[in-house]
Amino acid sequence: MALIHPQGDTLQENRGRILISCPDRPGIVAAVSRFLYDWGANIIRSDQHTTDPEGGLFFMRVEFQMDDLARRFPEVEEGFREAARPFGISWRMSRSGHKKRLAVFVSKEDHCLTDLLWRWRIGELNADISMVVSNHPDMEPLVSPFGIPYHHVPCNRDIRLEAEKTHLKLLAENEVDTVILARYMQIIPPTMIQRYKNQMINIHHSFLPAFVGAKPYNQAYERGVKIIGATAHYVTEDLDEGPIIEQDVERVDHRCRVEDLKRIGRDVERLVLARAVQWHLNDEVLVHGNKTIVFR
Amino acid sequence: MALIHPQGDTLQENRGRILISCPDRPGIVAAVSRFLYDWGANIIRSDQHTTDPEGGLFFMRVEFQMDDLARRFPEVEEGFREAARPFGISWRMSRSGHKKRLAVFVSKEDHCLTDLLWRWRIGELNADISMVVSNHPDMEPLVSPFGIPYHHVPCNRDIRLEAEKTHLKLLAENEVDTVILARYMQIIPPTMIQRYKNQMINIHHSFLPAFVGAKPYNQAYERGVKIIGATAHYVTEDLDEGPIIEQDVERVDHRCRVEDLKRIGRDVERLVLARAVQWHLNDEVLVHGNKTIVFR
Amino acid sequence: MALIHPQGDTLQENRGRILISCPDRPGIVAAVSRFLYDWGANIIRSDQHTTDPEGGLFFMRVEFQMDDLARRFPEVEEGFREAARPFGISWRMSRSGHKKRLAVFVSKEDHCLTDLLWRWRIGELNADISMVVSNHPDMEPLVSPFGIPYHHVPCNRDIRLEAEKTHLKLLAENEVDTVILARYMQIIPPTMIQRYKNQMINIHHSFLPAFVGAKPYNQAYERGVKIIGATAHYVTEDLDEGPIIEQDVERVDHRCRVEDLKRIGRDVERLVLARAVQWHLNDEVLVHGNKTIVFR
Amino acid sequence: MALIHPQGDTLQENRGRILISCPDRPGIVAAVSRFLYDWGANIIRSDQHTTDPEGGLFFMRVEFQMDDLARRFPEVEEGFREAARPFGISWRMSRSGHKKRLAVFVSKEDHCLTDLLWRWRIGELNADISMVVSNHPDMEPLVSPFGIPYHHVPCNRDIRLEAEKTHLKLLAENEVDTVILARYMQIIPPTMIQRYKNQMINIHHSFLPAFVGAKPYNQAYERGVKIIGATAHYVTEDLDEGPIIEQDVERVDHRCRVEDLKRIGRDVERLVLARAVQWHLNDEVLVHGNKTIVFR
Repeated sequence: MALIHPQGDTLQENRGRILISCPDRPGIVAAVSRFLYDWGANIIRSDQHTTDPEGGLFFMRVEFQMDDLARRFPEVEEGFREAARPFGISWRMSRSGHKKRLAVFVSKEDHCLTDLLWRWRIGELNADISMVVSNHPDMEPLVSPFGIPYHHVPCNRDIRLEAEKTHLKLLAENEVDTVILARYMQIIPPTMIQRYKNQMINIHHSFLPAFVGAKPYNQAYERGVKIIGATAHYVTEDLDEGPIIEQDVERVDHRCRVEDLKRIGRDVERLVLARAVQWHLNDEVLVHGNKTIVFR
Repeated sequence: MALIHPQGDTLQENRGRILISCPDRPGIVAAVSRFLYDWGANIIRSDQHTTDPEGGLFFMRVEFQMDDLARRFPEVEEGFREAARPFGISWRMSRSGHKKRLAVFVSKEDHCLTDLLWRWRIGELNADISMVVSNHPDMEPLVSPFGIPYHHVPCNRDIRLEAEKTHLKLLAENEVDTVILARYMQIIPPTMIQRYKNQMINIHHSFLPAFVGAKPYNQAYERGVKIIGATAHYVTEDLDEGPIIEQDVERVDHRCRVEDLKRIGRDVERLVLARAVQWHLNDEVLVHGNKTIVFR
Repeated sequence: MALIHPQGDTLQENRGRILISCPDRPGIVAAVSRFLYDWGANIIRSDQHTTDPEGGLFFMRVEFQMDDLARRFPEVEEGFREAARPFGISWRMSRSGHKKRLAVFVSKEDHCLTDLLWRWRIGELNADISMVVSNHPDMEPLVSPFGIPYHHVPCNRDIRLEAEKTHLKLLAENEVDTVILARYMQIIPPTMIQRYKNQMINIHHSFLPAFVGAKPYNQAYERGVKIIGATAHYVTEDLDEGPIIEQDVERVDHRCRVEDLKRIGRDVERLVLARAVQWHLNDEVLVHGNKTIVFR
Repeated sequence: MALIHPQGDTLQENRGRILISCPDRPGIVAAVSRFLYDWGANIIRSDQHTTDPEGGLFFMRVEFQMDDLARRFPEVEEGFREAARPFGISWRMSRSGHKKRLAVFVSKEDHCLTDLLWRWRIGELNADISMVVSNHPDMEPLVSPFGIPYHHVPCNRDIRLEAEKTHLKLLAENEVDTVILARYMQIIPPTMIQRYKNQMINIHHSFLPAFVGAKPYNQAYERGVKIIGATAHYVTEDLDEGPIIEQDVERVDHRCRVEDLKRIGRDVERLVLARAVQWHLNDEVLVHGNKTIVFR
């Protein structure tokens, strides 16, 4: 819910994050905090999770402030490599001041895109949006005022792999590290899914695992549910089955037709997607099997 | 959310309800309101729903106050039969002062039962609880202080139909008109389902249609959902597929084990079931196909 | 929550609404439904509310379909005048196809404005936005792409009445019937409040009546609440005391600084305001004393 | 939301908690984690909060598993005293297996009491309920089946201090460490408030700071709010002004009379109080000025 948004530049410049996942064993927290203390860092925030105190997996996220971190980053990273070695842990370190580079994919519904662009404009997204990609030309007028490149890449069942090639080239050329499917209604081929594993976020317009697949609002209408929802998840090769990052819901009732579910759902979708994107950008989401650990 | 609870006895005595469902055509509301006006009734509350203004179905619930209704009820009912004839509508009339007779079925988890008993004791349920039925003897000490008969009827796959026979006999002898499955973990055979069509309410411990069937909290844990829910529905022969009356949800996170989901879910389940039961008791639920119209 | 959005033009052209408020007495519903039947209208939706069955006030909203209503409207209105006379009721009739004319007032925070403009663009608001008015020039670039006039009218304590004169002139010239204060941070003088009684909606960034007045997020932070909210209300001469149309909330926690409360609050504010505006535009809000009846 | 309930006895026996609050400075986390590592403990869960990285206050809660903790507890506590000395920190250590001793105060509304007793019975409260105290005799039949002593201590404005004397004697004799005001409608005198500082929890039946004082549901009805709430807070000498532990809300609408608000509110009150009590019992609530930090 409530994560502190980057403010001052200098502050961000010298703020770092360590993310850790490994089998749980005594001494990890001590080693990490000792390392940070020795390097003169102050721990700003620390979260951890153990799947099971008896032989489970251990996940940790530490946010710290260190003088001159921006300049010394490679050195600090190298130092931590040493400190971490005895524990055989998986880890990565990043600077809060480093902005991820996003590509937003969209088809014909603009609510998620518009919302992300607005949040980016007012400074809610700690990222650069390097491009918007669509299988339709329709959204270009919405995007161009923001000075963000818009790529119309036609796509359908027959030219999917060709489109993918174009996508991967665009993403590589622009050093995109995170892909947001903001109501992009095309299947993503396996190569691209593997390339952006745990870095490609989709918004599905239902409360998963209910109403997997096409036309979830129609499905919800047919079933007569009293609450509808939306789900943001990392994309995997199993459609709508990837690790869930965030979900939310809204009440509906017997008076709602499919059109009403869509209208009500739009507000849920854009909020759910925005939260998932923000947490991802802040390195607050860790993936474990088919689940997420969200340190928010 | 907000239904007016019966207060004064006299007031209730002379308060009635008409429920209507029929193909939509002009003049129905005029005829009903004219009827009530002619009989000196005051409309207290009126709700209606049209599935489609062009040739859809029309549903209506009217609550009215009429002097001396308790005494004149058969006569009023007969009068309405006349008034309704030209419209070919399905309808039923009831007195708010008439309490439905409930049977509550339970297995080994007491949270829904305890909650219903508490609401009944403090006057939130406009009903008589005529019995509690269980396939286990465990809950008897919880029930007996309320002066409600407790029937232990063993049940499992092998003796299901035998148990059903006992159930139906008990229900008939006690003129039960509504059956509440308050976490009763046995399959209900078709005969009983047909006998209590749209009068038997089950609480399922998931947000349907997600996690149909057994152990929904385990399923939710495995899938890594961020929200769990509960669903109250009328029982049909298709397991967990009946018309949904009410649903609600609660947030969970990666720290929740199955035990935690169960604990959090208990609070959702008992509130959802209580709302569904209250609306049913107040004749606020109409069934249309596999959906409900809830005039709450 | 779930109101049916106008779709087809013809359908809207011939759809009307009657809103009624009067002392409750038998026969009103019968008279209204008889009237509509006699004129060949079909009731699409009907809602009513009685503050007290014994001598309270009665409120009703009927939505109906009538062939050729667009052309016959004055005649129908005159007919209803006759029908209503014996009951001494207050009423008004409108056509669903008639779009209200809005003016949106804003200061330096754009989230509510941006959201309303977006909803208007995609057809969620059954209205014409005839102008945006601001005491700052900042928002003009956001508004001009929509082809909506932007009026920068400087305003502060010293020139309040002068600004009001300009406002009233602009509003009159453009036949504005509804004013939305979308985070407009200036006091509205009494003349204008009276002119737009029950037609001027403000969004207050707290869960009223908590945190009346300035800087509610700072107040919420100081008090240490665990939930923040927003309130849309009609503007009266008592600051933040007008009839509440809609409220909603979001969870916060000890980690939230004032900046976080503002960020989280923005999403609540824009949803709450949008709902209130939509209900107002659909004539679903009736005011009774200092409260609203919302037939949604 | 989602805290893990104590299960196995041995596990609980050897599980401990350290709570820390102090001015933030580098090295604290390193010292604590080093201490636990040196004593062979495994950190199960760790939460921390900094009010401001630049010279703010630091709060931490660590839950750990240590072989034989139950037996070695005084020794471990002594060891930590040494380790903590250089940092000048406030801390306390407790064993998860140690159950707090509760007294529940109640007047004439039983919903919160009944709910707490039920949770206690099914094992949701890690506590001993050592007594129920009331200014009325009415609740005794509800309490006695649980084998919990019930003390009827008459109390009103005139005999408040006399009653307090009796209360304090009862609480002292039974070594009560936490007092729950479960809808106890009497003023608590200052001596008792000071004695149970940050250990006495009240449930107030409104969303504070809205509707402080008497009859909040009547106040909410008069104001015409669209959402009602409840607030659990530690009791201080300023009525309804103490540190808020938890709040929650429910929607209401224009149809709700005061009676309906009370009915709907009961469900909110008992859930909010239960959560606050559970967090308090698990030592998950720290008080800072007039706010709480809840590590849940």
